[in-house]
Amino acid sequence: MTVLAFSCMAQEKAVVPLPTPAQLKWQNAELAAVFHYDLHVFDGEPYNQAQNRITPIQDYNIFNPVKLDTDQWVKAAKDAGFKVAILTATHETGFALYQSKVNPYSLKAVEWRDGKGDIVGDFVKSCRKYGIAPGIYIGIRWNSFYGIHDFKVQGNTEFSKNRQEYYNRMCEGMVRELCSNYGDLAIVWFDGGAHGPEQGGPDVLSIFEELQPNGLFYHNLQRADIRWGGSESGTVPYPCWGTYETPAWFNNRDDDVGFRPLKYGNPDGAYYIPAMSDAPLRGYNGRHEWFWEPGDEEHIFPLENLMDMYYNSVGHNTTLIMGLTPDPNGLLPQPDVKRLKEWGDEITRRFGSPLAEISGKGKRFTLKLKGKTKINQIVLQEDISKGERIRKFVLEGKTEDGWQTLFQGSSIGHKFIHVFDGIEVSHIRLSINESKGDPLILGFEVFHIND
Amino acid sequence: MTVLAFSCMAQEKAVVPLPTPAQLKWQNAELAAVFHYDLHVFDGEPYNQAQNRITPIQDYNIFNPVKLDTDQWVKAAKDAGFKVAILTATHETGFALYQSKVNPYSLKAVEWRDGKGDIVGDFVKSCRKYGIAPGIYIGIRWNSFYGIHDFKVQGNTEFSKNRQEYYNRMCEGMVRELCSNYGDLAIVWFDGGAHGPEQGGPDVLSIFEELQPNGLFYHNLQRADIRWGGSESGTVPYPCWGTYETPAWFNNRDDDVGFRPLKYGNPDGAYYIPAMSDAPLRGYNGRHEWFWEPGDEEHIFPLENLMDMYYNSVGHNTTLIMGLTPDPNGLLPQPDVKRLKEWGDEITRRFGSPLAEISGKGKRFTLKLKGKTKINQIVLQEDISKGERIRKFVLEGKTEDGWQTLFQGSSIGHKFIHVFDGIEVSHIRLSINESKGDPLILGFEVFHIND
Repeated sequence: MTVLAFSCMAQEKAVVPLPTPAQLKWQNAELAAVFHYDLHVFDGEPYNQAQNRITPIQDYNIFNPVKLDTDQWVKAAKDAGFKVAILTATHETGFALYQSKVNPYSLKAVEWRDGKGDIVGDFVKSCRKYGIAPGIYIGIRWNSFYGIHDFKVQGNTEFSKNRQEYYNRMCEGMVRELCSNYGDLAIVWFDGGAHGPEQGGPDVLSIFEELQPNGLFYHNLQRADIRWGGSESGTVPYPCWGTYETPAWFNNRDDDVGFRPLKYGNPDGAYYIPAMSDAPLRGYNGRHEWFWEPGDEEHIFPLENLMDMYYNSVGHNTTLIMGLTPDPNGLLPQPDVKRLKEWGDEITRRFGSPLAEISGKGKRFTLKLKGKTKINQIVLQEDISKGERIRKFVLEGKTEDGWQTLFQGSSIGHKFIHVFDGIEVSHIRLSINESKGDPLILGFEVFHIND
Repeated sequence: MTVLAFSCMAQEKAVVPLPTPAQLKWQNAELAAVFHYDLHVFDGEPYNQAQNRITPIQDYNIFNPVKLDTDQWVKAAKDAGFKVAILTATHETGFALYQSKVNPYSLKAVEWRDGKGDIVGDFVKSCRKYGIAPGIYIGIRWNSFYGIHDFKVQGNTEFSKNRQEYYNRMCEGMVRELCSNYGDLAIVWFDGGAHGPEQGGPDVLSIFEELQPNGLFYHNLQRADIRWGGSESGTVPYPCWGTYETPAWFNNRDDDVGFRPLKYGNPDGAYYIPAMSDAPLRGYNGRHEWFWEPGDEEHIFPLENLMDMYYNSVGHNTTLIMGLTPDPNGLLPQPDVKRLKEWGDEITRRFGSPLAEISGKGKRFTLKLKGKTKINQIVLQEDISKGERIRKFVLEGKTEDGWQTLFQGSSIGHKFIHVFDGIEVSHIRLSINESKGDPLILGFEVFHIND
């Protein structure tokens, strides 16, 4: 009997890949903010990333956010409904927004707050205050101050090798500090990845795993708890499966297929690595700015675009990461704050009042409405704590002419949102035609949204 | 008459090259200390300069001189009779011993004194307290942290060029800070020189000239107010002329003659650039240590060696620069302090009580002793404020057998000391056989020194 029970459990687990608790939290968060802040925000110049990577900022004392208020940042994110907020502890200059004992190029170096500032600390505190899970972004791939280009110290001398060694240990030291001093982190994000020792880089993964066992690691060749969705448009195509064919993704970019595997995932993939969608809030009309720059207020996405993004990211089984840009005063600019509030309000308006809802295990779910009712939006959710099981489904509405197909779909995952022209129906039906294991529906909701 | 007077003055000036007031002070100082202090003092390892130049110190928080007391350092230098004291504000790690706003790799970065330490400031204050003229040593030729080797950023990319530019501006910024924030400096010492813009380096000379018009600049292609004496033995050969054939000396090293021009100078040289002798106090018996290292107490020069050095440096028309080595506690070790006191006392004993002395203008000076007197030491000084004029001289003593030649010399300059086996004489005579312009004798002293 004991043996049999074990066997059953093993079989249950093997149906589909399962998310870790951290991945589950991440997907449930749906919306995350990433705040980019670095020295060049203060230089009054347009940001040129390629140039910035190879040009140290001459005077780091331009960093002087006299009105810095991370509460104001985080409250704005909260108003939009974000449940995770990430801060660039270091970005591509190499300048660290905290009191590092291993990286002298940090807030210890500046006159601001008499060299005692700790923006990472302030930020994490604000997150806790507003009930948002904090995450930290660490850039180790580029460091214009120290001379790091694509993870590497410049040059090929013994000196270069020694400096690479120094840099690697410094990175490990920073990761240790950031993973030790600020409590549990939702995610530690190494942008552009984190080359490990096998690629001549620091061993940041083992430090992360030691100190942040409950967090998401993003990412290196050994581990990627989430994957990039293949664009910075804030959207992914449909379907975007939460599973993937390899345990990490740097090693399977393919020139023939481009970012297609990242965008779509693979329903038969053995690894649970959900995609994310990312975009900067100031990405409208020809701009795409992760950092504050003068005169970019006009390039804040209109509400309509943000909602489109929401449907094509959260509604496509990904977490949407929105780039927010504190200004040289240390505040999120008012136009951005206003737009975030409008966005959060609009999400609440559109998803706060379902006409009907149901959940449970099974292959067919029917919602009966109060007589003929106009509907134009459906939200589906699987219980992904048990994995993404559904492979094919159909949504149908019962009209005066009988059942009509509204949508034939494949992936649901954490969330699938279908928006369509209004139609009058008395019933709505979800039929799962193909799945691995029993389909587990966490939510099946219908709405009628007024313009 | 006015024209004639002017003409006479011009002629007077043209006799020989003259020292600047700063050079005059420097030569009158005779003894200067240079304190070397840098991160690797704290690493517990023997110092390996070649390796140190290409190996960043991994943990700069090893810098923790808990008992730092620059008064103790400077008092020890005072006890030896030093009149100038120099501190390595930066040495070859690149780590700055003060609160720099342009170099993050400084005392701002460390935990010691909560990142508020300013050893340069403490040091200068101690110097003023003890009546010693402070000088600052700035190393810009090497920087193991930032990746500078022999003035240059490693690599040949656009990135390298940008970092070189950054580094050059950083060096200029440090020079501006160090020349602005600590009052008048006796000397600003760029060890290994200071490549200027024409060699791809920073323009430190113009900043020095703007901010420290009364100080010595040491040194670059344009200007060298003193010259290295061609060895680190604490001695120069005889004669060592204060004049030199070129206005600076990086540009006339010659493989055929080695450091010979530096060692001897040139009596016909058009530029007044007196030599210095330098050596570390811990340079005895196979060691030669500018920095504190564990177990080097045995290698402090014995008093006898220090006196030999004195005779062959101060006594050969150079200023002797002695390297002193504060330890990881931030104190000059007691054995060094003791030896310095002994040395100062011995100098006073040997030079404090002349049997006879004279000064004045002329070609022959005779000292009459109180009857037959045993003598074994003679000190000569020119009034070098009017330049080094004497080219040939003879010292004679009148014995029972008549006048006997004691020494046939050439250079006197600031000071010439002749030590010899004791001889009984009733008179001592200095005859200047050749000079440019009238010989001006500031001092002609005879001594009998007991062993």
